[in-house]
Amino acid sequence: MEATFLFLIEVIGTIAFAISGIRLASVKRFDWFGAYTVGLVTAIGGGTLRDVLLDIPVFWMQTWWYLAVTGAALAIVVLFRHLLVRHDRMLLIFDTIGLALFVVIGIQKSLATGYPMWVAIVMGMITGAFGGVVRDILINEEPLFFRKEVYATACIAGGVVYWLIAIGGGGDILQQAACGLTAIALRLLAVHYRWSLPVLKG
Amino acid sequence: MEATFLFLIEVIGTIAFAISGIRLASVKRFDWFGAYTVGLVTAIGGGTLRDVLLDIPVFWMQTWWYLAVTGAALAIVVLFRHLLVRHDRMLLIFDTIGLALFVVIGIQKSLATGYPMWVAIVMGMITGAFGGVVRDILINEEPLFFRKEVYATACIAGGVVYWLIAIGGGGDILQQAACGLTAIALRLLAVHYRWSLPVLKG
Amino acid sequence: MEATFLFLIEVIGTIAFAISGIRLASVKRFDWFGAYTVGLVTAIGGGTLRDVLLDIPVFWMQTWWYLAVTGAALAIVVLFRHLLVRHDRMLLIFDTIGLALFVVIGIQKSLATGYPMWVAIVMGMITGAFGGVVRDILINEEPLFFRKEVYATACIAGGVVYWLIAIGGGGDILQQAACGLTAIALRLLAVHYRWSLPVLKG
Repeated sequence: MEATFLFLIEVIGTIAFAISGIRLASVKRFDWFGAYTVGLVTAIGGGTLRDVLLDIPVFWMQTWWYLAVTGAALAIVVLFRHLLVRHDRMLLIFDTIGLALFVVIGIQKSLATGYPMWVAIVMGMITGAFGGVVRDILINEEPLFFRKEVYATACIAGGVVYWLIAIGGGGDILQQAACGLTAIALRLLAVHYRWSLPVLKG
Repeated sequence: MEATFLFLIEVIGTIAFAISGIRLASVKRFDWFGAYTVGLVTAIGGGTLRDVLLDIPVFWMQTWWYLAVTGAALAIVVLFRHLLVRHDRMLLIFDTIGLALFVVIGIQKSLATGYPMWVAIVMGMITGAFGGVVRDILINEEPLFFRKEVYATACIAGGVVYWLIAIGGGGDILQQAACGLTAIALRLLAVHYRWSLPVLKG
Repeated sequence: MEATFLFLIEVIGTIAFAISGIRLASVKRFDWFGAYTVGLVTAIGGGTLRDVLLDIPVFWMQTWWYLAVTGAALAIVVLFRHLLVRHDRMLLIFDTIGLALFVVIGIQKSLATGYPMWVAIVMGMITGAFGGVVRDILINEEPLFFRKEVYATACIAGGVVYWLIAIGGGGDILQQAACGLTAIALRLLAVHYRWSLPVLKG
């Protein structure tokens, strides 16, 4: 039951990440295949770097559904383009839910591989935020990562909450839920109130 | 005999890929070492990503000849610059043959590592097309990959033909030959008739 | 004793590399977290690629001090901005010492993993020079690597000296010292006399 629920959220998160990549690619007038690739890389880039760094089998090579879900994202962009523009807020919420789940997955995989909590927090952040960095490199834009509203920081805050609850003796479910909700809340508040980190003066 | 023949084609393909990288680097006025590096990365980038994702020893670290062949490519560009301009068509054919062989190698390595056919097709495409993506990232150009005439698509078409013949019970040689010829034919036809995939409207 | 000395040099080199990344990020007006990330990637990018290619555990995931040292580098940039501008020469020397040590570490790790000397020389160069390439990709600038004064070349020269002394029967310490000093001397001379490799004509 819980597994099915998490699976459903991962599908939604993957679709949301892929759509964000595909939409940026369409602005740049890429062809369909290029747009599909950018969408795929946005969705799986972070987890791929995580798995390579952890030296574990790369997740999207174990089941074909990540490729299929990205195909569904492409179909959604092509068929429902006008609807998407009107539902930016819904996309943001999907994207944020996906982000939170990706962080939780990154933390769990790292701990399961035997790494300490501080590595897990970094890997949670990489899983959530690095796909967007690769996307920006591929479309030859300066990564949003470095200026955007609290984004990677929300991943790290979620990871720290995960840690604190583990230290406090909270169970698995509580750790995951609190981590995800922290990331979601921080991200949505940051977008709503236009929070951002201070710029480093040069 | 067959091994020698494949080795010869791989040398030709590596040289063709390296030359394409070195020529782009010379347009950007890179120094010799920078041009060599861009050539090398164009030639080995796809196979390197493939080997890292498959978690097998990286191919160019097992024998020094890939580095040597890239040196030969640099010498060719320096010494025969004027000839190259007049023989663009020959370079295209070498490049396309190299591409086709890289796809076949990528598929075979993935299957030998125990991955299913759909992963092998993706790895064949990565082996053939990703070197050019890294090249474009290094010289800070938007990857051609995303707009160019049918290129990555030709790799995938070759992979699908490989699959169909495997399903149909065709032998190893037939699979490889049909895969390579499909990629070559599709690529050359696409260049000749200026085929390209439709642009995704934004 | 020697271990403590090498550790101290590695800290200094890491700080110097991180500072170079953070300063470039501040020119681009990145936020604090983005600047930290660029600094970190500059300091650990080369070693990370080396460890992934060698298929050994990634060095910065084994101890938290690389992340801490990068934090110290960020604090230095924020607190002593004006001093840094006046001490560009000191930064160059730190950066060059770090470069030399990174080359030595890259060579030793590769040999310890069982690779031949020519792979070790390439890995020494990647350890020293690749972090700067990733930094330039992240800030969306054309990598300096490809035009800069003798830089990657100094790494390779150091590696070749390491090799020659190994062939000549010199001991470990002599190999390391001669390798490092060669890289340092070549780099500083190149900066002082504005040496650069010839540009490849297109």
